[in-house]
Formats: sequence, structure tokens, C-alpha cells
Amino acid sequence: MAQFINTKEALVTEAIDGLLRTASGRLARLDAYPHIKVVVREDWDKCKVALVSGGGSGHEPAHVGFIGKGMLTAAVCGDVFASPSVDAVLAGILAVSGPAGCLLIVKNYTGDRLNFGLAAERARTYGIKVSMVIVDDDVALPDLPQARGVAGTLFVHKIAGALAESGADLDTVCAAAKRVIKNVASIGMSLDTCTVPGSPREDRIAAGKAELGLGIHGESGVELVDFSTALDSMYVVLDRLRPYAGNGPKVALLNNLGGTTQLEMAVLLEELAKSDVIDDIQYLVGPAPMMTSLDMRGFSVSILPVNNEELALLQSPVAMSDWPGCKMLTMPGIHPIPDGLTPIKPIPSADPKTAAFVAQCCDIFLKAETDLNALDAQSGDGDTGSTLAGAARALKDAIDRLPLADLTQLYRAIGLELSQTMGGSSGVLLAIFFSAVGDAASSGMSNVEALKAGLARVQEVGGARPGDRTMIDALTPALDALPDSLAAAATAARAGAEHTAQIVKAKAGRASYISEDRLSGYNDPGAEAVALLFEGLSKHLAV
Amino acid sequence: MAQFINTKEALVTEAIDGLLRTASGRLARLDAYPHIKVVVREDWDKCKVALVSGGGSGHEPAHVGFIGKGMLTAAVCGDVFASPSVDAVLAGILAVSGPAGCLLIVKNYTGDRLNFGLAAERARTYGIKVSMVIVDDDVALPDLPQARGVAGTLFVHKIAGALAESGADLDTVCAAAKRVIKNVASIGMSLDTCTVPGSPREDRIAAGKAELGLGIHGESGVELVDFSTALDSMYVVLDRLRPYAGNGPKVALLNNLGGTTQLEMAVLLEELAKSDVIDDIQYLVGPAPMMTSLDMRGFSVSILPVNNEELALLQSPVAMSDWPGCKMLTMPGIHPIPDGLTPIKPIPSADPKTAAFVAQCCDIFLKAETDLNALDAQSGDGDTGSTLAGAARALKDAIDRLPLADLTQLYRAIGLELSQTMGGSSGVLLAIFFSAVGDAASSGMSNVEALKAGLARVQEVGGARPGDRTMIDALTPALDALPDSLAAAATAARAGAEHTAQIVKAKAGRASYISEDRLSGYNDPGAEAVALLFEGLSKHLAV
Repeated sequence: MAQFINTKEALVTEAIDGLLRTASGRLARLDAYPHIKVVVREDWDKCKVALVSGGGSGHEPAHVGFIGKGMLTAAVCGDVFASPSVDAVLAGILAVSGPAGCLLIVKNYTGDRLNFGLAAERARTYGIKVSMVIVDDDVALPDLPQARGVAGTLFVHKIAGALAESGADLDTVCAAAKRVIKNVASIGMSLDTCTVPGSPREDRIAAGKAELGLGIHGESGVELVDFSTALDSMYVVLDRLRPYAGNGPKVALLNNLGGTTQLEMAVLLEELAKSDVIDDIQYLVGPAPMMTSLDMRGFSVSILPVNNEELALLQSPVAMSDWPGCKMLTMPGIHPIPDGLTPIKPIPSADPKTAAFVAQCCDIFLKAETDLNALDAQSGDGDTGSTLAGAARALKDAIDRLPLADLTQLYRAIGLELSQTMGGSSGVLLAIFFSAVGDAASSGMSNVEALKAGLARVQEVGGARPGDRTMIDALTPALDALPDSLAAAATAARAGAEHTAQIVKAKAGRASYISEDRLSGYNDPGAEAVALLFEGLSKHLAV
Repeated sequence: MAQFINTKEALVTEAIDGLLRTASGRLARLDAYPHIKVVVREDWDKCKVALVSGGGSGHEPAHVGFIGKGMLTAAVCGDVFASPSVDAVLAGILAVSGPAGCLLIVKNYTGDRLNFGLAAERARTYGIKVSMVIVDDDVALPDLPQARGVAGTLFVHKIAGALAESGADLDTVCAAAKRVIKNVASIGMSLDTCTVPGSPREDRIAAGKAELGLGIHGESGVELVDFSTALDSMYVVLDRLRPYAGNGPKVALLNNLGGTTQLEMAVLLEELAKSDVIDDIQYLVGPAPMMTSLDMRGFSVSILPVNNEELALLQSPVAMSDWPGCKMLTMPGIHPIPDGLTPIKPIPSADPKTAAFVAQCCDIFLKAETDLNALDAQSGDGDTGSTLAGAARALKDAIDRLPLADLTQLYRAIGLELSQTMGGSSGVLLAIFFSAVGDAASSGMSNVEALKAGLARVQEVGGARPGDRTMIDALTPALDALPDSLAAAATAARAGAEHTAQIVKAKAGRASYISEDRLSGYNDPGAEAVALLFEGLSKHLAV
């Protein structure tokens, strides 16, 4: 599978340089590319215990993303899934270690143990105080002699980092790290393998299955389990962690292994929070990608029983945006829905003249149903006539319920009626039109001004402009001419509608997706409807 | 492709509830599930202009992730890629709008325009001041009549949000939003489509190709282009944005469309920063997933020319961890590599007795080469003898360069020599052993104590314990017996080595991957080597 890289060889160095460009001077790297890839804090005080971590790349944001005040001092980066060399680790140690010494935080993989271990020995020959802890939080195989280090490492980074930042000495920081390592347990589940740059992708997980207990280097999980839902997945994972959870308050870390969507991670969080498999999970780190395995579509959960001191260290603020914080799990806050969702029913009032006018408008659309459908069939799905006729029928049925004696309320009521009875975009647009006309009328505008204000709102929301081959091409000239006379408006609407037959490049509405030759010679059905309306009214009122 | 969800129908409501559980009381939702999915700020002061955004889900962290002080006041969430209803938008407006009014920030999709537009009309009938802006930043098709709203929307959220938080009135906030919309331009590129929950995945992008100018709902890009590298991809994208970039300082927003790894995003950032296609990109938002399209393996770049006021608004801090900040693009900071990477060469010194002892040890291993290889072939790749003999040869050759007269320096020098000449884990472990013995000796320990300290370090780094079927099973009893006599040590080492033949379940080292019946009856080759060493020395020195 293609990836946005240049070469496999330059991948990690280019990525580090990219990240350093937005580090605002907080971070720097050592000048020893490509073999030594070490990122260090710029604002580092060697009177404090330095924390050096790292390992193979492909686990981003680990480890560079966690360098900064209150977490790591330096990260030693190998190539993707490959341990950094002894020299690289030694360079990292030498770059940041002062009188307070250095703690190496190493995930339990043979290459990392050996290379960090030998680098530590070399550093000691220079008189540097170096301690090393090895994280082995993976509980995938309970009797595995050498459990792997996975996302639980983040707890070590954060707790040891906050302690070191506070000025604690090496023994204290190391002891705290060891306590976390002793207590933390993690396990992961994935629906797919990861894509290692330069290597063919392995499709080893069958549909309907998931791997449980996987490492973070694309190695197979220890077990292939049936996959059904987020609920079941979280149950299985928590069930495996339960024997290690102990009593008392716990923090869970919900890690995205890289390719899981944020929607899925949020659903998994919901299942974790609702679950009673493990008691007393009071706090959560995540959900976020923290210790990833490239693009793996999976997640892991780490559980750490904590005392008050550890909790405070976990919750102390840091500047790195990749650390999602440690937050208390609470019930979702729920507010009642606000009043006003059910529109106020207009108070009916009588006005025979207005009632007749509304009925006349409706009759015009009822009569035009077939013709408008035929016209619409040229450029769309042939239902403009039926849509308008349906709305007209509903409006006629509702006439007695309308506030006919109050024009402002009447406009709003028609808008409401149309939004409830007329489907599709046109129903919403007409509802917006009448609502906006009512608003404008209530502010004291003349009838024509109010109609124009409604038209402006329809253009704003719908995005159509004159010349776009829509009903606006008839309505705009009609409203411009209306102050002269209804007859003038009808003439202008007709001219506008006829002009749409010449517009072959529609720029808005559904016709914008239709080929030009299918449009030529046919009026836009919306514009035609407007022309028919004004012509009909003009004829009727003139009689 | 399977996903960590329960049902498609409950996906968005469960995800929202999950997120609310870690919102520390900052956020709440309205009590109108499942049809109305509205998340609001808890700490909201209605004297300020409310910012309401939203649309279909599947773009996480947009929009819920950007609710909070200095950005959005509420988000109205539809189902995946589906516009929320008019009622839902109205509920959102009513829940957060006070005397200062409300700005709706809508991405340019028909459903969103209409539903937000009609909701605005309805809200206005209640006397609420509502303005609406429509973001259309996608420049994929320069003559597209209705450009889509994509990741540039984030600039509107942040700038309008910071202004509203500062107490600006609705007209000012709206004008600022409109200026951003007028100036911002975005375009995306993807290597794969996205997986819509409940729908079959469409594999429409051939190998070697990428889609350019795609929307955020899985719709096809406007163009299929050749894909080669991150460099070329960034060039194509910036080239399309150049006509809209104007003069003066600019901010780029580098958005992960969901499924791109952090390594790739960092490489793309590096290419963006190095590129001279667009002048004067001084600041960067990202790289981060901000406006995603589920798990799409792609990215987008948005460019906004800014004035000083806008820059300050973009850079003002917010609490939401999903907003990655707006950072100045700088050159990567580079430090010289620290002194000490090249180990100090020991000063040779003569001591005939020590020289003879070292040579004797080497000869023992040279003599045992074939036998140890044969033994190793039972459980490994048959090279233990060759590995040790190779190291022995190198050490013999180096005898004249060793600091033979200074035991502390000698141990360290042997460690260094072994780490440089002996491959594999065993070379690193022996180097660690001798280095640690040297360290211990330098602190004044006796020879036996120093050797034991070295053994302890090897156990710490290598992870093996007595009983794990390694050389430790011979070395531990040998060192325990050594204060008595060399002969006693040899006897103990032999007993330890013989005992390994009974250990059929190896717990460390390569033999832990070997089936039990292949191990039974054969001594561990490492333990055997230790026994041979002590036996040889005992015999020789006794003569």
C-alpha cells in the first residue's frame, strides 16, 4: 500500500525534522544523521534527573511527542521497528545527563534491552549515574517469560517525568518507575495488521476475527478471537486485565494503535466506562494514539492501580499536545432540550380576501402540476409539479387554521406549514423564504420590501444567484416590477422564465449536474412556476 | 471492513457519550437522543456571541472536539456524513444563544445550508439574533459554482471563537468569519477511500495513483493523479493552492484525513516547510487530524493569508487538546553530538602474568569451538563455539594493546573489544558483563564481588534468571564457590552446566522458542562454555 513517504531510508530523519520545525524551539536533535537519531529538550536543566527513552520508530507520537517539561528529556529513535544502536543511545545519555544522572526507560524487546544496556555501561565509565528500567506490561500470555513493553510505558514516562521535573533524585525516580512497571498491565486487540514501509502488507486476520494480545511491531496476536461488537471487544480485553487490576482506584489508558477512527475510539471509551468487569476505574488517559503500531486498526487498554501521589503526578499538566491528560471518568452531563422546538401554533384569524388570495395561488399550482412535471423531466426527476401541487393541497386544507388577519404571522405560518408538508430542498427553501418575509414584515417593511428580503435570504442559504437557472431568475425581476403593477410583475416573471431556456450552464441546484444540451430550450421548472403564479394572479385580480 | 462499533444507528450517540465522560464537566449534551445530537459548553456565558457549528459525523475531532473556551459553543451532530435535522440545529441555537446572539458556521453542503438556514429562520422568530456564514474553501475545481467546505473551516472556528470569547459583538464576529472564508483555500489528496460504517468499501484508487481534490464524505477527487513521493504530493497540493495564496504572511493548516500515520504526516510537514511553491508560509496548524473523513489515508492543506490581529486570534491558547495550536515554522534546532561517543583508547601496559591468564582463557575457547558448535546445533544455529572462538582470536591479537597492569581498565577494555568484535546478543551481553565488572572494581570491590556485580547487571539487562537454561546457570554457582578455590568453582560450574540438560523449558534466550524434547539431555552451550572455562583454568593453574 502506497504511503506519503519519500524513501524508507529517509523516513524517520525527515519525520523528525518535520516535527522539530513546529517545536517552537523546545526541541532539537543531535547532529549525527542518519545513524544517530536523537531528539532532546532545549530547555533542559541538568540538575534534574534526565529521562531517556526510545526504541524503534513507528509508534508515534511515542517517543518524540512526549519529550518536554514533565515527561521525557530525550528520545533515541531507531528506524521503523528497529532498535537504535548502542552509539545512538550513548549519544542521547551524554547529551542530557548531568550531576543528577539519567534514567533509561526501555520497553522489553531484546534489541532495546541490549543496546540501551551496553550504552548505560559505557556512560557509567564516564562517571555518569545511569539507571535503567524495563517495561513489561503486556499480559497477553500470562506465562510468557519475557512480557513485552507496550502502551503502559506511557504511565512510566509520565509519573517518572513529573517526579524528575519536581527535582526528585535518581533513586526516587527509578523506584517510582519500578513500582509503576510492577503494577501496570496492558493488552491490545486489532482488526488488521499494519503496513510496514517497504514491506508487503500481510492480510492474516480473516473477516469476522480479531487478534488479541498483539505486540506493537506487527507481530501476530497470541490468540485469534471472534469479533462482533465494540462492547464484546472491550469485555474481552478488560476480562484479560482483571487478574492484574488489584483493589482500589485505577487509571485506564485507552490507546489507539494507529488506524482506528476517533468515532470508534469514543465508542470503545463508552464501553470501557460502562463496563463493570473491572471495578473502580476512576480515571482515563485518552482515547488517543500514544503508543501506535503504524496504521494498525486496533486499540489497547492499560490498567494502573494508583495511590494519591501517583495520581497527582499523572494529572500534573504538561505542554505536549500528544499527552491527552488524565481525566476523571464522569457521567455524561445532560441538559433538558430548550423550549421552542415545538413551534408555537399560530392563532387562526379570519380575512376572506386573504383566504381567497391564498386559495387562488394554490389553485394555480394545482392546475400546473402536469405541465411542470413534464418540464422538470427534461432536467431532473420530473416532480416539480407534484411537489408544488402537494404543498398547495396541504395549504388549502390548512387555510382555516391560518392567522389570515395578521400578515406577518401569516407569512411565518405558511413557512411552517410548508416545512412540515413539503419534502426536499425546495420545501426547506420556500419555508426559509416565507419565514424571512414574515420577519422582515414584522420589522415594518413594506410588502414588496419584505418579499425581497425573503428572496435575499433564500439566495444566501441556497447559494443561487440570478443567472444560475433557478426560480430566482423569474422571482427577482417580478419583485422589481411589482411596485409598478401585478401585470408588470407577471410580464417580468415570464421574461425571466423564458430567459432560463437560454442558460445552458446551470450553476446551482440539481441542474448543475446535467449536461448542457439537455437543458437548452427548456425553461427552468422553478422559474416557470413563478411565472405561472404571477400570470395567474395578474389575470385573476385583473378580472 | 470490520469496525469497533456496536450498531451503525447507535454509533454517533455512543461516541458522544464516551467523549462526554472525559470532558471533566466542561461539556454536556441535550436530552433528546437519538434524533437530536447536540453538545454544548457547560461554562457558557450567554452575554457572549455563541458559535454553533456541526454537520454530519465522521469528521472527528470536528466538531465536538473543538467545543470549549475560545472556539465553539455548541456542535450539532448528524449521523455519519448526514446533515442534522432542522430541529436539531434549532435546539443547538436555542440552548446557547442569549442577548449577544449566535453565529452559525456551516460547511457548504446543500443539506447543511438548508437545515441550518431554516433553523436560523425559526430561531429569529423567537427574537434571537442569528447570523450564518458558509465556508467554501475547497479549490479542487476552480470554476465549481458551489465550492465545498472542508478543513479551512477550522480557521473560522478558531478566529471567530477567539473574537467571541473576547466579547466582540455578533457583527464583528461575523465579519471576521467572512473575511477568513473569503481568503482561505484548501485542497486534499488521498491514497485510499474511507470505510463508511455499514457500507461496502469502495476500492476505486488504483495502485500508483492518488486522488486530488476530494471532499470529506468519501466522494471521488476531481482528478486522479500519479503518486510517487511525499515531496511530489506536497508539490501538487501547494501548486493548486498558489493562485489563492496572495502576498504577505500565511498560516498553513496540515490536516490528517484520518488514516495517515503520524510518520507520514511529519514527512509531509517537512516537505511543506522546505517547499518554495508558496512564499511566506510562516505559521503552521498541525499536523493533526482536525477535519477527517473517517479513516481516509490522505491529507489536506489549507492556506490562510493573515493580518496581525488574525494571527493573534489563531495563537490564543485554548483548552481543547484536539486543537494543535498555531506555531511558527522554524528551522530544526541541531546540537553537536556530545564528546565521548568514540571510546577513549586504553593506554597499554604490560603484565606478563595477566597476559598469560587472558591468553589461557582464549585458548580454552579456541579449543572448544567444534564441541560447543555441536552442542548449540541441538537447540540453536550451531555457532556458539565459533562466536566465542572468534572473540578469543580477536582478544589474543589485541593483548599487546590492553592495559594489562590495571585490572579495572583491563575489564573495561575487554568489554570494549568484545562489543566491537563479537556479533549478536552474546557479544553485547559479554561487553556489558566486563564493563560492569570494571565499574565495580573501580569502586573498590574485590575481584569476586566485581564479577558478581557484572553477573547481576547481565541478568538485569538480559532478563535471564538462574534456572532459565543460560550461561548464568553455570556462572552463578562458579562465582559463589570461587572464594573457596578455583577448583571448587570449576566443580560448581560443571554441576550447573550438567543441570541445564534437565531444564527442558527454557525461559530466556533463543532456546525459549525451541520445543522441549529438543532440549532434553543436552547442556546449554553457554553454560557448558563457562564450565569448560573454569575447568580449564583450574587444571592449568593447578599444574
